[in-house]
Amino acid sequence: MKFVVEYEGSDPNKEKTSTLFTLANGYFGIKGDIEVEPSEYGTMVYGFYDNTPYFYREIVNGPRIIGIRIFLNGIEFVPSSLRAFTKRILNIEKGKVESYISSPVLEYSSTRIVHIKDRNLAILKFTIVPKEEGLLTIYNPIEFKQTNPSFIDEVRVKHYKIVKLKEYPTGIYSKIRTLDGKYELELASSLLFRGDFERVVLNKGEEFLEVYKIHVEKNRSYEFSKLIFVGEDIKKRLNNVKEVNIDKNIKEHENAWRELWEIAKVNISDSELERAVNFNIFHLLQSAPQTPIISIPARGLHGFGYRGHVFWDTEIYALPFFIATFPEKAKIMLLYRYNHLKEAKENASRNGFHGAQYPWESADDGYEATPSEIPLDISGKKKVRIYTGEEEHHITADIAYAVDLYYQFTGDEDFMRRYGLEIIIETAKFWASRVEWNGEKYVIKRVIGADEYHEHVNNNFFTNIMAKYNLYLVLKYFEDPKFRDVVIKKVSKEDIEKFKEIVHNFYIPRKINGVYEEFDGYFNLEDCVVDNIFEIGEKRLPLDVLKRIGKTKLVKQADVIMGMVLLKDKFSPEDMEKNFNYYIKRTTHASSLSMPPYAIMAAWLGYEDIAYRYLVKCANVDLLDIYGNTKDGFHVATAGGVWQIIFFGFLGIDIKEGRLKAFPRVPRNIKRISLKFKYRDRLYKAIYENGHLELIPLK
Amino acid sequence: MKFVVEYEGSDPNKEKTSTLFTLANGYFGIKGDIEVEPSEYGTMVYGFYDNTPYFYREIVNGPRIIGIRIFLNGIEFVPSSLRAFTKRILNIEKGKVESYISSPVLEYSSTRIVHIKDRNLAILKFTIVPKEEGLLTIYNPIEFKQTNPSFIDEVRVKHYKIVKLKEYPTGIYSKIRTLDGKYELELASSLLFRGDFERVVLNKGEEFLEVYKIHVEKNRSYEFSKLIFVGEDIKKRLNNVKEVNIDKNIKEHENAWRELWEIAKVNISDSELERAVNFNIFHLLQSAPQTPIISIPARGLHGFGYRGHVFWDTEIYALPFFIATFPEKAKIMLLYRYNHLKEAKENASRNGFHGAQYPWESADDGYEATPSEIPLDISGKKKVRIYTGEEEHHITADIAYAVDLYYQFTGDEDFMRRYGLEIIIETAKFWASRVEWNGEKYVIKRVIGADEYHEHVNNNFFTNIMAKYNLYLVLKYFEDPKFRDVVIKKVSKEDIEKFKEIVHNFYIPRKINGVYEEFDGYFNLEDCVVDNIFEIGEKRLPLDVLKRIGKTKLVKQADVIMGMVLLKDKFSPEDMEKNFNYYIKRTTHASSLSMPPYAIMAAWLGYEDIAYRYLVKCANVDLLDIYGNTKDGFHVATAGGVWQIIFFGFLGIDIKEGRLKAFPRVPRNIKRISLKFKYRDRLYKAIYENGHLELIPLK
Repeated sequence: MKFVVEYEGSDPNKEKTSTLFTLANGYFGIKGDIEVEPSEYGTMVYGFYDNTPYFYREIVNGPRIIGIRIFLNGIEFVPSSLRAFTKRILNIEKGKVESYISSPVLEYSSTRIVHIKDRNLAILKFTIVPKEEGLLTIYNPIEFKQTNPSFIDEVRVKHYKIVKLKEYPTGIYSKIRTLDGKYELELASSLLFRGDFERVVLNKGEEFLEVYKIHVEKNRSYEFSKLIFVGEDIKKRLNNVKEVNIDKNIKEHENAWRELWEIAKVNISDSELERAVNFNIFHLLQSAPQTPIISIPARGLHGFGYRGHVFWDTEIYALPFFIATFPEKAKIMLLYRYNHLKEAKENASRNGFHGAQYPWESADDGYEATPSEIPLDISGKKKVRIYTGEEEHHITADIAYAVDLYYQFTGDEDFMRRYGLEIIIETAKFWASRVEWNGEKYVIKRVIGADEYHEHVNNNFFTNIMAKYNLYLVLKYFEDPKFRDVVIKKVSKEDIEKFKEIVHNFYIPRKINGVYEEFDGYFNLEDCVVDNIFEIGEKRLPLDVLKRIGKTKLVKQADVIMGMVLLKDKFSPEDMEKNFNYYIKRTTHASSLSMPPYAIMAAWLGYEDIAYRYLVKCANVDLLDIYGNTKDGFHVATAGGVWQIIFFGFLGIDIKEGRLKAFPRVPRNIKRISLKFKYRDRLYKAIYENGHLELIPLK
Repeated sequence: MKFVVEYEGSDPNKEKTSTLFTLANGYFGIKGDIEVEPSEYGTMVYGFYDNTPYFYREIVNGPRIIGIRIFLNGIEFVPSSLRAFTKRILNIEKGKVESYISSPVLEYSSTRIVHIKDRNLAILKFTIVPKEEGLLTIYNPIEFKQTNPSFIDEVRVKHYKIVKLKEYPTGIYSKIRTLDGKYELELASSLLFRGDFERVVLNKGEEFLEVYKIHVEKNRSYEFSKLIFVGEDIKKRLNNVKEVNIDKNIKEHENAWRELWEIAKVNISDSELERAVNFNIFHLLQSAPQTPIISIPARGLHGFGYRGHVFWDTEIYALPFFIATFPEKAKIMLLYRYNHLKEAKENASRNGFHGAQYPWESADDGYEATPSEIPLDISGKKKVRIYTGEEEHHITADIAYAVDLYYQFTGDEDFMRRYGLEIIIETAKFWASRVEWNGEKYVIKRVIGADEYHEHVNNNFFTNIMAKYNLYLVLKYFEDPKFRDVVIKKVSKEDIEKFKEIVHNFYIPRKINGVYEEFDGYFNLEDCVVDNIFEIGEKRLPLDVLKRIGKTKLVKQADVIMGMVLLKDKFSPEDMEKNFNYYIKRTTHASSLSMPPYAIMAAWLGYEDIAYRYLVKCANVDLLDIYGNTKDGFHVATAGGVWQIIFFGFLGIDIKEGRLKAFPRVPRNIKRISLKFKYRDRLYKAIYENGHLELIPLK
């Protein structure tokens, strides 16, 4: 499946292409900018974070190592300045980007991969056909100009210093260090050319480069391979670059992708939709970290949106896909949370609670990374106060929920005993200390729910039912003889009794005419409805409504609906229908996290049109840049949501009392869907065709 | 007089050379980085300011337009990467920088000027002698990568956006706009070469460039001229570049410099000292603004220290030199203050006072530009609170003092009637509202004096005597029949009476054994003295002293002494001597503003050794990078101080009751000094030789 951009001169959708064409391997990522033009984007590496103004810590825009500069007879080849025709192709089946540039001076073509198995390797193969004879000069630079955007794009932060530059007969090597001194990173590159050339290495301060000088004939083809090494201990790899079989490496990479697709691909009779759905899966697969140094940031390795921070997007939206396809990758992501239990405990204790409270935004170190304020103007005089870090507490229950989901699919007892139960227990302890007794019930005051329009609210529906479920999970595992021994080691009898009492007396917001109140007092707010449930975002709202939006019933994203989707067994179809119809008219979908749960529930309720159209919208969130911020990275949550709409929504796959079930509700204009998933160490194929679903165990 | 740097490879003192070799013309400035290497420094233009985090507004590091890149047979000429020998010469008599680079591949030489009369013009003439035949490519770029350093160097602010790029047959043109939209600036460049070449224009986003391709012979000399235009309405200048007589323009520039030196040069028998003194005068002359859009910033057009803000450094340290040599330039600087009387009044009123309160730090718009806090770490968690903007009030009296000094030298009645008196009167009104009656006297509470170690002090000596003098000046001009009509238009009879009463009852800090207390309670502080009065700065202090420095008697810079120097007629030689001996032992000179007043008073008191050695230190503040921050720009105040040490200190030139006097006190190891100055429209030559001083009226 291929995605093509074509243009003359410079790419009119440069920033979008840059994100869509990002290649990554769960360790490092390179944005999709063409290599022969300057770019502000360098190399993003999982775990390579540094302190930054306002946003605490952020993933570093490291040096650029994919760039190449070409000079023919002294004139630099800058396609955007020429009447050059460019065609670029992202091939998601093979995990590569191909570029073809046809210009009056030369023809250029290239293939780029970020090796999906060899985590330190990227390769750029390129061919130049000069249209005049003479002198061809190739620059192979490591560029140290790349910086991170701060609260506005014009304020930039350079997070690294050069520690070492070294010239090798076969390449150039650099080592950088973050400003805080916590991390070092090596980047090296080697340009290979079979033929006569003269080579010089130059150090220009912000560029360290190999220069190749070649006398070329007109219309002959000159082929180059650029090897890129990123990571630690990569010096040794520069020594034997000449023996590297480039094509074999690329083949290996393509084979690895074939293996991934063998499991991950979603086949849909509607080929446009199939392409879009798998585009999302491709970027999810690229984003899954190889080690638990970090989990998937909200915008992947694809941009600086949300600064490389990890949100509930990961556990609630992206993780289910991995749980059901590559549970070993899901486990790595949950281990990231386990590894930061200590910081989550410190966080709870700092806020006056027990147990573990996960930060709303989490960086490499597991501490709260949400800014408490962000300047609105460059001089920093006007600032907006951000409350999510202090109030959006549901993340802690979301993580516990994800741990349980992982176990339900995988049956990974070892994980639960060693890691998972501790997360569930410590988060439950947080909730037990977080709730307050109001004389009748246990309530949760002053939170932000999934819906972020309403701050400082009491008894948010989503938060309350998820918190209650978090506490319930401890009781569930306590009752399970397989785990009782572990649970009683970590929780006292008294705590268990306390949890029971809280669960039994947990306050759930009132229900009027079958509709749950999103939080205390929500029903008393000014009513507002959206014109059209198929439009998204806030632009369509009148300015005066937008200004007082927190005082209206408008909802940014699924909250009651999200809760009902996650804990579907607790609600009747009638309840779902009433709440769906009520809230969908009041939801702006200004968050990219909103449509997926609505689409899932729409499928369950048989609202085929909504289910289908929301799926199409979600699958195209980045391809069509629906939220206007694709430049800041790939929408990880929506991508996970796309898969969930199909899996949980359309195919209705579910685990009930430990048994796999499916209740397909596929919109009629989709004739056929098939996909694979894993359940309890077994691979299944789900084949839906003309109203019938088969789940076939494969091995 | 020439200043030479020589090095192999890259300049070991790059940042220092960059400041020392800055060329400017009172409109724009280009730092002294060599043109054939990359540089983070672009073009600084007076008045081209923009909003910035923490520091309110700052002078913009504009695009770089001096850069040139050379490629010989495909390989870029990067001297720092080669075993290239570089010799660079700053010729202050001719206002030019010459560079000679000898390398294995080519010989390069250049001459650079920033035209001192044609404010929009800079010229780079260069010659290349290739050591092999083949293809020579010259890049003539306008680089749009330059950014400003923020609170740490790694946080950068890019203050401009490109508005327009245009290619001309004879050059390249760009227009940029500050982020706040307040200013636009044009930059254009044209590379001239007589000979066969091919020319291409490329747009690389952050670079817009002309590329020249020339087939060269070995060992032949190729000569280029680069014309640079900076400012407004410069398009038209690109049209006739071919007719520009480069050498004539350079000659014109050199002649203009000769005329400046004709008046400004200080001749000293000690030629090393003479060179250093005139080095300071050279940079002062380059910094004097051509229009009152701004006054001289604390670090000139030479760097980003203090963000291009104007302090009392200008009026009290730099201005006397201009008053006595080029009073028309002094007038422009005072007009900058006059033009911002409105903002100074708003400032006073905002702080609850009457009249005009000048901001401690002033940018292009005349509002207070002092940060109230600055982050100490990149994440901005730790901040240091800055009180100078709120408390260092003496600036307002300093400006009034400077206006009076201007008048005393020039007798410019027209200026006083139209502008000067209004400044003196409005600032006096400020003080009248600022003082408080303590039952016995008028006092000034909660200030920072010239000595910045002690914050929130009451009755700072320097502030009180300057404030009193500010009020007294109104009375003085009121008594002068030439000005009475203007004064009574702006001040009520009651105010005059009030001013009188305050002046008569102004509290001056107590004197014990002849020593004035720097502020109330100073004498009760822990006593500390410095080991060696010839060492400067804080590095020599024990850490524990440094930590509690505000609680000791240590003084950062001349305060009592500064006041006595400025208002010398009010103090007896005995008082001066006692205070000098007391305070010099307690002054760290951690501010570059400290040594000049001490040196002046040392001369008056006949402390020849101190006077001489302080002068030498001051004259070398940048040449020897004595404060370690020459990279942030030229020390304008010290430079002005150097001239004052000689003029007011050594030669003892003074105006007493409207008559020119002189009491030379030149240290014996200086045999001869001569300089020129203007007094009341007449040019004088002061010739000191072997203990005798003559003042000769010239015309």
